[in-house]
Amino acid sequence: MKQSVGAKTMAMPTPVWLVGTYDADNKPNIMTIAWGGICCSTPPCVTVSLRKATHSYAAIEARKAFTVSIPSQAQVAAADFAGIVSGRDIDKFAACNWTPVKSELVDAPYVSEAPLVIECRLLHTLEIGLHTQFVGEIVDIKADESVIGDKGYPDITKVQPFVWDSCHRRYFGLGAYLGTAWEIGKTITAKES
Amino acid sequence: MKQSVGAKTMAMPTPVWLVGTYDADNKPNIMTIAWGGICCSTPPCVTVSLRKATHSYAAIEARKAFTVSIPSQAQVAAADFAGIVSGRDIDKFAACNWTPVKSELVDAPYVSEAPLVIECRLLHTLEIGLHTQFVGEIVDIKADESVIGDKGYPDITKVQPFVWDSCHRRYFGLGAYLGTAWEIGKTITAKES
Repeated sequence: MKQSVGAKTMAMPTPVWLVGTYDADNKPNIMTIAWGGICCSTPPCVTVSLRKATHSYAAIEARKAFTVSIPSQAQVAAADFAGIVSGRDIDKFAACNWTPVKSELVDAPYVSEAPLVIECRLLHTLEIGLHTQFVGEIVDIKADESVIGDKGYPDITKVQPFVWDSCHRRYFGLGAYLGTAWEIGKTITAKES
Repeated sequence: MKQSVGAKTMAMPTPVWLVGTYDADNKPNIMTIAWGGICCSTPPCVTVSLRKATHSYAAIEARKAFTVSIPSQAQVAAADFAGIVSGRDIDKFAACNWTPVKSELVDAPYVSEAPLVIECRLLHTLEIGLHTQFVGEIVDIKADESVIGDKGYPDITKVQPFVWDSCHRRYFGLGAYLGTAWEIGKTITAKES
């Protein structure tokens, strides 16, 4: 029996990403977000949603670019911090002991210490309500050598991204391997044939 | 030292969600997606991206509605299956032994056996490229009584959603509790004060 819990943003899992921008003073800033995801394969695009009131919103509008640095679970405290305070008031890179790296491809910085980073040029801006959704075209992804796995692609078990629990405001790590896509489902395909 | 891995859709973590629709023959269908996320808090909105070639695309366009059923990790094989085959060719609900429930709020069905479901009316359609992004306003969320936790909200540790690894096409469960938001970051705030 299902219960209604109301019209709330209680989808799961949602990611924990650090959106990197330069502000009007060329100061690098990051903002932690959970409202985002991949939205297109070709061109490869990622979406992040921000409130207009944030310092990062104006920066994306002005520079037409942003990065997404994906923190590892060992960086959860700093990632949480970067979602509590505003870049107007504090240098979050310095407070987190993180190093801003200027992207060579887009006008935005990323977090050197994050194992995986995405560089984006702004492709679309969609006004929805409290949040504005920015669609960024992924122009490159960069990964620490230490997290590269098979085929030269990032290994999620080495990146160790973590999940935001919007229902109870908690963070959770990545768990057990459950199966390989387009294989584990074949048990059901077989049953139908 | 970071390596370029190219312009690819290798963000992580990404969700595994079942998009529920009615087709032109009123047949309920589901499609497994990983390109989606929350995109606005007020109004609460969720986004899912689909290729135009899919059976579900036309259904969302026609009915201006969809649901998102969030499967539990025990349902990974069926969720994988629902991403392999098309609703044009097969009754995925029947193949997965799942029960379609007609939403009372929007013109779309959800998966009775999924622990958490989101009912959406179509708010925006954004053409991006290979994928079209549908923004749905969340009109209600329904959860199995067995997964309700504190405050009457869904407990992620009971829902047990899982993660799609787009780099190596694998599924992973939810891992350990890492901390509580707006608390774990205060260690860093304190250092700055």
